[in-house]
Amino acid sequence: MNIVLLEPDDCQDALWIIQQPRQYQHIIQHLKLKVGEHLKVGIRNLARYLVEIKKIDHDKIWVEPIQKEFVPTKLPVTLIVALPRPKVLRRLVMDSVTLGVDKLILIHSYRVDKSYWQTPFLQQLDHYVTLGLEQAGDVYAPEIQLYQRFKPFVEDVLPQMIDIDKPAYLAHPYAEKPMPQAIGHACTVIIGPEGGFIPYEVDLMKKNGCQVYHLGNRILRTETAVSYLLGRLFA
Amino acid sequence: MNIVLLEPDDCQDALWIIQQPRQYQHIIQHLKLKVGEHLKVGIRNLARYLVEIKKIDHDKIWVEPIQKEFVPTKLPVTLIVALPRPKVLRRLVMDSVTLGVDKLILIHSYRVDKSYWQTPFLQQLDHYVTLGLEQAGDVYAPEIQLYQRFKPFVEDVLPQMIDIDKPAYLAHPYAEKPMPQAIGHACTVIIGPEGGFIPYEVDLMKKNGCQVYHLGNRILRTETAVSYLLGRLFA
Repeated sequence: MNIVLLEPDDCQDALWIIQQPRQYQHIIQHLKLKVGEHLKVGIRNLARYLVEIKKIDHDKIWVEPIQKEFVPTKLPVTLIVALPRPKVLRRLVMDSVTLGVDKLILIHSYRVDKSYWQTPFLQQLDHYVTLGLEQAGDVYAPEIQLYQRFKPFVEDVLPQMIDIDKPAYLAHPYAEKPMPQAIGHACTVIIGPEGGFIPYEVDLMKKNGCQVYHLGNRILRTETAVSYLLGRLFA
Repeated sequence: MNIVLLEPDDCQDALWIIQQPRQYQHIIQHLKLKVGEHLKVGIRNLARYLVEIKKIDHDKIWVEPIQKEFVPTKLPVTLIVALPRPKVLRRLVMDSVTLGVDKLILIHSYRVDKSYWQTPFLQQLDHYVTLGLEQAGDVYAPEIQLYQRFKPFVEDVLPQMIDIDKPAYLAHPYAEKPMPQAIGHACTVIIGPEGGFIPYEVDLMKKNGCQVYHLGNRILRTETAVSYLLGRLFA
């Protein structure tokens, strides 16, 4: 973690409290910080500070803010991904947040195993968002939405997200044209499941306003495709 | 896996043999293929084919080549990475191979835990290369080199890899200028360990011909940085 993300409730008094065991252990055992040393801290959805450690006991650390710090900006992107298997989901959420995705939407698709929607990880997305923010040094949690039905999402929700200033790009291995690069505007990007979207799904997304582009002639894992694509798109 | 990668020894006769349990199970249990159906197969470091399944027994599959297929080209990049912890190493090797890195070099650095060099995964790199090739649909294994001493590598080996047609770019969070994007030439890219290179290391790489660029103001995990950076660099 590159910052320690606190909840607003823990930052009400003059001294703020770090009391989550995961964070406490990171500071004491990994960073080996002592009273008087400095640390980067974020307050969820509010701001980021440099703080000084004032007191340490067996399970809490008290810190005092020294100065406000810059919070990195988000990428102007809505990322839509077919729900991956649970193990991949955790890293995908964490990575998307770390990379600065503004909004993340997980959708169903023909090749998404229905059991994936039952994974307990979907109840713990906040935890992976926190890990992603702490990695990036960010404090603003992106919005996350889930759509368990493909057709209503593509026909009713997706078209409202597309306009001339914010096109929707579908990454699909068999498209004719390559994905745009170093664009200077917002966009929505869509990445399919392992095995890809089926032709019916690609057609439905096209009909509802998506532009279809390939990402080269190598087939990437979902998580690899996300960071590769975001690196390609934004300057 | 998007192709099944075979060893040249298994492709000597008219019918080729698939006998690795991992590959056998993938074809039978996951793809559920039967005699007469088609499959994509690669022969390591040679070529890629569409094949037909001719015979299946309890632990082997015999296939016959139908036609030669296109093998995706590599990216003109040498990737140098500070050795990450073992769990990350596996995914990093797999992803680098999938993305088409031409040559991968793992080096030591001050913030690389010395125990990482003892991991059994370093003896199994070929396996992760195979997984990466099978994901990408590629058959050519990239060259992988290990350098356990930072200074001799940077002073003696690195300068010989740099010339005007192939510059070396070091990704470093506190650089002044952003990493180039959509370049039209080969390059070497260098990515530091968790916690970054120390100032002495950055200086030594600079002195030996590296250009230092940042990747934005978010701090990325090593694996995320690799795919983000490669997506950014190449058109």
